[in-house]
Order: sequence, then structure tokens, then C-alpha cells
Amino acid sequence: MANPVLDDREIDFLLHDVLDVEQLTKLDHFADHSRETYDAVVEAARRVARDVLFPGYRSLDEQPPVFSEGRIRVADELRPMWERLVELGMISAARPYEVGGQQVPLSVLVAAKAWLMAANAAAYGYVGLTSGAAHLIEEFGSDELREQFMSRMYSGEWTGTMALTEPHAGSSLGDLASSASPRDDGTYSIHGSKIFISAGDHDLTDNIVHLALARIDGAPAGTRGISLFAVPKRRPGPDGELVDNDVSVTGMIHKIGWKGLPSLALSFGERDDCVGWLVGEPNRGLAYMFQMMNEARLMVGLNGVATAAVAYQESLAYARERPQGRSLTDRDPDSPQVPIIEHTDVRRMLLRQKAIVDGGLTLVLTAAMQADLAAHGATDQERSRAQRLLDVLTPVVKSFPAEAGFESNVLAVQVFGGYGYSSEYLPEAWLRDQKLNSIHEGTTGIQSIDLLGRRAMAGEGAGLATLSEAIAGTVQRAAEAGVDLEMCSRMTSAVQELVGLTADLGVIGAAGEADRMLRHSVDYLDLFSVVVIAWQHLLRAAAAAESTSIDDAFRDGVQRATRYWFATEVPRVTLLAERIRSGEDSFATMDPSSF
Amino acid sequence: MANPVLDDREIDFLLHDVLDVEQLTKLDHFADHSRETYDAVVEAARRVARDVLFPGYRSLDEQPPVFSEGRIRVADELRPMWERLVELGMISAARPYEVGGQQVPLSVLVAAKAWLMAANAAAYGYVGLTSGAAHLIEEFGSDELREQFMSRMYSGEWTGTMALTEPHAGSSLGDLASSASPRDDGTYSIHGSKIFISAGDHDLTDNIVHLALARIDGAPAGTRGISLFAVPKRRPGPDGELVDNDVSVTGMIHKIGWKGLPSLALSFGERDDCVGWLVGEPNRGLAYMFQMMNEARLMVGLNGVATAAVAYQESLAYARERPQGRSLTDRDPDSPQVPIIEHTDVRRMLLRQKAIVDGGLTLVLTAAMQADLAAHGATDQERSRAQRLLDVLTPVVKSFPAEAGFESNVLAVQVFGGYGYSSEYLPEAWLRDQKLNSIHEGTTGIQSIDLLGRRAMAGEGAGLATLSEAIAGTVQRAAEAGVDLEMCSRMTSAVQELVGLTADLGVIGAAGEADRMLRHSVDYLDLFSVVVIAWQHLLRAAAAAESTSIDDAFRDGVQRATRYWFATEVPRVTLLAERIRSGEDSFATMDPSSF
Repeated sequence: MANPVLDDREIDFLLHDVLDVEQLTKLDHFADHSRETYDAVVEAARRVARDVLFPGYRSLDEQPPVFSEGRIRVADELRPMWERLVELGMISAARPYEVGGQQVPLSVLVAAKAWLMAANAAAYGYVGLTSGAAHLIEEFGSDELREQFMSRMYSGEWTGTMALTEPHAGSSLGDLASSASPRDDGTYSIHGSKIFISAGDHDLTDNIVHLALARIDGAPAGTRGISLFAVPKRRPGPDGELVDNDVSVTGMIHKIGWKGLPSLALSFGERDDCVGWLVGEPNRGLAYMFQMMNEARLMVGLNGVATAAVAYQESLAYARERPQGRSLTDRDPDSPQVPIIEHTDVRRMLLRQKAIVDGGLTLVLTAAMQADLAAHGATDQERSRAQRLLDVLTPVVKSFPAEAGFESNVLAVQVFGGYGYSSEYLPEAWLRDQKLNSIHEGTTGIQSIDLLGRRAMAGEGAGLATLSEAIAGTVQRAAEAGVDLEMCSRMTSAVQELVGLTADLGVIGAAGEADRMLRHSVDYLDLFSVVVIAWQHLLRAAAAAESTSIDDAFRDGVQRATRYWFATEVPRVTLLAERIRSGEDSFATMDPSSF
Repeated sequence: MANPVLDDREIDFLLHDVLDVEQLTKLDHFADHSRETYDAVVEAARRVARDVLFPGYRSLDEQPPVFSEGRIRVADELRPMWERLVELGMISAARPYEVGGQQVPLSVLVAAKAWLMAANAAAYGYVGLTSGAAHLIEEFGSDELREQFMSRMYSGEWTGTMALTEPHAGSSLGDLASSASPRDDGTYSIHGSKIFISAGDHDLTDNIVHLALARIDGAPAGTRGISLFAVPKRRPGPDGELVDNDVSVTGMIHKIGWKGLPSLALSFGERDDCVGWLVGEPNRGLAYMFQMMNEARLMVGLNGVATAAVAYQESLAYARERPQGRSLTDRDPDSPQVPIIEHTDVRRMLLRQKAIVDGGLTLVLTAAMQADLAAHGATDQERSRAQRLLDVLTPVVKSFPAEAGFESNVLAVQVFGGYGYSSEYLPEAWLRDQKLNSIHEGTTGIQSIDLLGRRAMAGEGAGLATLSEAIAGTVQRAAEAGVDLEMCSRMTSAVQELVGLTADLGVIGAAGEADRMLRHSVDYLDLFSVVVIAWQHLLRAAAAAESTSIDDAFRDGVQRATRYWFATEVPRVTLLAERIRSGEDSFATMDPSSF
């Protein structure tokens, strides 16, 4: 049985039974859409994923781009993939009609992108980066920049990058040192070094627009002095033709995964001839970036889920077919071997993967739905409620799929046994791909500080209050649908534990003990994630109980994954809360010499 | 600061303060030894590890053996490494004088091998395999076989392999189908296919002796019909010269780690000209293998610890030197960046690694000490007590370093941030190496069934009773040394929980419900591991409190790792026990169609 990449029934169930995305068509912004257009978007992506991206996955993994004579050349297999992705219109599908988009809800697009990412994350990477970079110009750039750069990016004529990181200032953006000196014509002369720039060079398109952070001469130190620039690889010359813009590739990082997508060290202005266009106001660069951060982190989360999901499907197909051993009670050596899915521990590894993948994907879609409502909801109240919920969910959306998804990918390897340890089989490749997601767009540690230090505390805990309400709504829906009341009541207790703990930590923080408050931030993020994913499973269980369109086997799978999560993960909430409250300081106060 | 591979102080502390290996010299078998000879063995290994093996690690990782014209050629870098390893005498150091060994205690050798494995697991692999294969012949083979094969293996003239696995029968050895037909001269004609044979071919030595499992014609089906054979790559010809023995390489597996050590598919007797020598009695092959299994699993455990340890050292050195960001309360962007070890979450990642590595290495040494006592103890009672303890510890020794060690390796990657995701830095390579340890020599799932289904239940729980006594002894030692009594009492409670749970599961098993008893075997193994590692940390804390030879920083490190383990892991015991007792069946009873 071939790997289906994702389970068709699952995507359908999520969009229509769990989330009811059709309701979005009632909003003005999505009024032209319908269930049919939504399904068509997803179906088109599925076809490209299955027919084009997935079959070329391993070959792209084995042929990383080549760095020669100062430029990057990609594998030829990538070219038709890129073309099909551009044809799909994914780069601008979420954007408004006036910039060439189709105003597709993000929640629908997330389902479509799940297919593409699961099939081939590296190939999809060019689309995601270009979309994000163009969106920055759309949101904050002048009309001139929108016309000159954005429109060519949305159409797929050019691609884009995010050029933030510098060698000496990885996660500490306030320390970046790239400079921008005003020129007479209103543009800037850019100098500086960037690192880990994905798709920072390639030969898929004629031009690449880097959305780069730099300091205008004389700007304040730290994060308040950072501006955003569009720095093209080739700039419009005097005759309108493209001329070289002095962006050079100084090195290619040998990444362990996402191998089709080059990660580069770039140098701006080595010949003193690199021109950048200021995007928006001076010194607002980091604020602009942060406005796009929720969406970028949602996309990392989606990638994490997709990478775990495709590996789950691969290990499931293998477990159903691979004969090995017998049941514990069968002592007859002449009896035929059974498929390994008959072994209890293999089922455990499969259900654990399923619970992580299904819970994670539901969460990413839930967050995307809130993003749709935050931007296009009918009332101020609806929009701000959705924004609060999205804000507080985002660190979980970003980090749960990365961390639990990695564990899921490890299990997929383990199901394959010795074969899983070889590159003749695919699971090891997804394991490598997945590892990036706990690192880029803010490490898990940074997400945890962002959640506990900012988002959970913002507006006197308004985000968490909104989350509690939303979960209470789901508990009610589940109870009405006939879901086990014991489970509903455990959900409520878990939320209460989270809210109480957060309040107590808030008191510690308010007393000026930031170090103490944040000491166990990663445990807090873990606890928060367990609760949020439990909520998503409860939502699924409610939808499965209500649905008349799913079959019994599928419903049983949803119910078992929910039971598994409540039996295995939810009990950890109390344990984690105790540890966090204890203020245990073994590592926090440890002197570097004691390691 | 360069990576020291392992911490010298740690090995010294373990051998002398924690375990007092010098006491072994009181036993007849080790009477010629002394603290000085022990330290000399370890020091010699350390020198080879640091000077020869570690500097060549990456280069070996990047140059896997080449399969061409039916044979395997290894990287030239490997040759001097192999020579130095042979000179060290590691292949036979543990063996008796009469077979050319030095009667070094296994507990001392484990410390020496920890250096070699941490420095270069693939290079060490040839030694370990040869040692194990020769040991099988020593233990069960005829004098003729010992002279012909074993002595050349112990001297490093030839190497050896373990040839168990077949393509259709990975973990299910009872299903293997290789055949052995008696020949007139008492030897056998061997036919069959093997897979995943490490070092199954190479050009380091003139000959390779495969210790292969096969069925003699007419043998019973299943595990009772398996015999052990010595099947050399080249056999002694009529004139005493070596002639080809019809063992062909049919494929090389592209492993994701341990790249210097080829993993091969072999075919015996394609030209009907493959001769094997029966080792021991017919149909006893699996029993022989199992007699060596404890030691083989101990070596896998040691490898897991070593692979995590060297990565911990690498990430520690990096964290002390890499400047990035500032403290949470420093708002001055002009202040210098601090080394990342100053960040609380980085310290958490380092102390978690340290707790896993130190706890794991202590356990492996503890188990090796029991192996020494089981074989050479002064009295029957001492020997059988040690054997019981070793038996019940072995699945933890094998699987804890593989599973927790992998998590530790993941943390080492994470400490490096984006650089950790690149092969310009080493942590990603150790992550790949480590993954094998949860798979080979019996997967974690198989270890868990072996522990709960056999070892914990054997002799009406005699192994567990012995373990409880040993832990009680450590609790007393710790209390007398001044270790926190609260921690001592939590250790005692955790053991009681384990013993009670095991008894309850035994009742379920005795009632014929094997499936129900073993349903959560992996959770049981996890719980068992938490308790055993807590014991080892308590032992370390006691030794650190007693020792007059360690410095304060080192002592503080030991104490903090212990506190960390008791605060973070020990509370999981109750949670796991509850889950296991609940009999929760979400996955166990799940129909394959519901996934």
C-alpha cells in the first residue's frame, strides 16, 4: 500500500465536521467562496502533492543545491515542482483581490498547504518564503515597492527571502549590525553579513528580493534602531533592465534536512554597490517583522505537523504489511508470521503518532481559523476575541509540532526497525527535516519565554481567559454530543490548573522576580500544550460523535486518539504544575564551572 | 575550549569513589591487578581516544566504506585507528590469561571503552564485534575452533561478526531459514541470506569469521532448531592457505550513522561452496547467543551513554564560549552579550544532558561490576546475587541510554541553535549515531517485554528483591554520608511503588492474561529506568559527599544532577504506575482499520 501522504478523510473531517469552514463564507471578505471552492483549493493542492511533489521528495533530498562560481544551482527536478506550485497560485491565494490574490481563508489554505508540506517541505519552502516576504511589502511598503517587487513575487516571477539573522546575533536580533546609509535618491546603501538565509540564492527565477533588517546610520542601539529593507539580488538599472545589486553568496550551510532548499551566508555591499529600499518607516523593522510573526510561526507549526503526518502514514502502511513474529500467546513456530501492526507496542507507537499528528493539525487549523476571524470577523468584538486567542495559542502552534512532532518522527523510524535506520527508507529523512522546526523562527526556549513572559500575561491574562471560554464551549459541545463526561470534567480541571498556575506566576513576576517566574518556562509551555491539544482532541471527539458523514472505523480512531491523550498526557498537567510551582532551582542557579 | 571527549574527573570519580573498583583485586581472578594497572588501562584508552580516534571522527563519518566489485573497501583513515586499537589489546583484555587475555575487570574495561566509543563509535565497532564473536567460540567452541579462529580474532589478525538477522526475520529469530547440511568431514555446507551484518566485509584484515545462526537439516521449527556456526570469509584450504569460502556481499545498507562501519547483506553458499564449523551442540545456537546477550546489551548501553556524553561535552564547550543575548533584566543594548550558558534554559538543557549521561554511565559501570562479581565473585552467594542483579538491570542498561541518550543528543543539537542543524558542527552526527541503539540488539519494545515478562518475574521476583536490597544499601550509605534525607525517603517510596506494581502485574500474568500484563511494558521499562537511574544518582551523591579527592565544583555538579533527577523524573513514577495499573487499552485493542 502506497503512502497517501495525508489521510483524505482526516482533512475533510477537519474542515467540515470539526471547524465548519463553510461558516466563513458568511463574512464579507470570503463572500465569493463556498464549500465547493474550498474543496477545490484543497483538491488542487492534493493533486500536486501526490503527483508531483511526493514522488520527487527523495531525489531532491539526495541532490542538494550546488554552490559554484558564487551562485547556487538547484536540482533540475525542482524546476517542474516550482512551476506547478506557482500555477497553483499558493503564493498569493490568501491575499486580497486587489493585489492579485483570491481571498481564500487561511484555514482552508492551511489544509491545502499541509498536503504540499507533507509531500515535500523543501520544494514548498520557496513558496512560503516568497509569500511571507511579499506580504511584508504589501502590508508596509509604498505603492512603488508594491508594484516593483510585491506583484512580481506574488505572481511567482521572482522569489523572496527573510534576511534577519547575522552570524554574531542569532536569536538576539537587537545585536544585528548590518548598516544602511541614505543615498541621494531616497534609497539606501546596504552593508552587512547575513546567515541562514533560506533560498537566499538559486536559479529558479531571475530575481530574488531579500527582506532584510539593517540599521540606518545613527539609529539607536538595540531593537529600536532596526529598519526593514527590500534588497533585491538584481535591481532595476537605468534602462529598466535588471543589473547586479552586489549581493554575494559567501557560503552554503550543509543542513541536515530540507536539503532542496539552500541555506546561505550572504554579504551585502562587498563592492559598495548594494541598494536597498526602505520598507515603511525607519526604525520600525522589528515591529513589522513581529506583525508577521504569528503567521510565520503558524507555518512552522504546520510544517512540523505535516512532516510528522507523512511519516506516520509511511509507518502505518509498513506496519500493515510487514510480517514479523507472532502474538505473545502463539507458541507454534509453523504458524504464519503476523503483520507487525498486530503487536501491542507497534500499535502504541502508531496511536501515539496519530494523537500527536491529529491533535497538532487540528490546532494549526483552529489557529488559522482564528487568524481568519481576527482579520475579517464581522464585529470588532469577534476580531479582537480571535486575535487574543491566536496570540496565546501561537507559541504552542509553533513549538508543539516541532517537539512532539519530532518524537512522532522518531517513532516512525522505530516502527521500521533496522530499515528505519537506513536511507533506503524514507522515515530518516523526515526525522532530519523535522529537527529544524524547534530551532528556526524562535527556538522552543524562546517560544516558552514569549508565552509565559508576554502572551499569557498580556492584558491581565485576557488571552488565557478567552482560551478558557473557548475550551468551556468545547466541553459543552462534547457533553451534548455524548462524549464521556469524565473526560469533559478532566478537561475543565486541567484548564483550571493552568489558569491558577499562570495567576500565581504572574504574582511572582509582578513582584519583580522575572527569573523566578520564567525559570520553568519550557515546562510551562509543555503543560500549556498538553491542555491545548487535549482541547483539540475533545473538539474532534465531539465532531466525530456529531458527524453523519464519517465511517465507524474513522470515528473509532478519533475516539481512541482522544482517550489516549487524556490517559497519557493530561495526567502530566498536575505533575508539571507542581514542578513549576516548586521553583526547583538545580539548573537555574548552577555555576558554569559545576557542569 | 576543545571537547575533552569525556570528563577525566568523572571517570576517576566513578571508578574509585562511586564503585571502588580496587576492591575487585581481592578476588583471585583479578589478584594480579591494582589501582595502578586499572588506571593504566583507562589512561591508554583515553590517549588513543583523544589522539587518534576523535580527531578522525568526522572524516570517517564522511567517508563510508565503498562497495565495489563484490567487496568492501574502508576509508584509509580507519587503518591506523584499527592498528592502535589492536595494540591496545582491547579485543581480549577481559579474557583469561590462557586465551591471551589480561583478566581486566569488565568494570574497568567499560571505563576504557567509554573513551573509545565516545571518540569514535564506528571505529570501535570492529573491536567490539570481534571480541564478542571470539568470546562465543571461546565459550562454546572446540579446542580446534579456538585455535583456528578464536586466537586469530583475539590477536586482531582477523575480525568477527554476529550474523543473526535475515531479511524476513528481523527480531523474530525463530523464523530464520539459513540452512546447514552435514558434510562428510564433520563440517557443514551453509546456505542462506543475512542482513544488517556489521563489518560483514572490509579490507582491514585478511579474514573475517561470521558467527552465524542456521538450521541443520531436519532440525525442529522455531527457536529450538537453531545452531551456531563459525563461517569464515576465507577457509583453510588443503595446503593450509586461505581459500575463498563463498560468502558474498549482496548489498550495503546506507545507514544514517556509524558510517565508518559497513552494514551488509551477505549471502552464504551461492556457489554451493560455503563451509561452516558447528560451534557447540546442535540446536543450542540461540541459547549460546543469549548467554552472551547481557554483555552485548551492556555494550550497546555503553555506546548510548558514550554517544550522549561526547555530545554533551561539545555543547557544554560551545555554551561557555558562544556569546548571544543578555540576561532577562538587562535592557542595555550596548552591554556586551553573554555566553549562552548564562541563560536559564540553556543550563536546563545542559543539566538534563548531564543527568542522563552521568546517571547512564554510572549504571553501565554498576552493571559491569555485577558482571565481574557474577563471574568471579568469592562465593556462590556473591556470584548468584550479582547475576540476579545483572539480569534485572540489563534491559535498562540497554534501553535507557538509547532512549534518554537520544533525547540528550537532541538537546546538544538544540544548544547549538541553527548551527546544530548543520554538518559543519558535530552534534548532528552523534544524533544519527545514537538512533541505532534503540533498534539493534533488541528494540526498546523487546527489552520492555523481556524485562516485565521474564526478568522481573523470574524466580518469583528474586531479581527485583535483590535490586531492592541493593538500593536500600545505597539509601543507608547516602543517609550516613549526609545526603538529604527527604531524597533518601523518596528513593525508598519509588522502589516500593515498583515492587508493588510488579507484584500486581505478576498476579495478572499468572491468571493467564499475558496481553494485559504486558500492555504497558514500555511504560514499565520507563518507570523501572527512572528508579534505577535515581538509585545511581543517589549513589553518586553519597560518593561525592564522602570523597576527599574531588573539588567543590565537581561535587556541586553531582549534587545538582541528583536533585534535578529527583525533582524532574522521580515524580513520574507514580504517574506511570497509575497508567500501567489502569490497563488503559486505547491502542492495545485498536483495530488496524481505525488508524
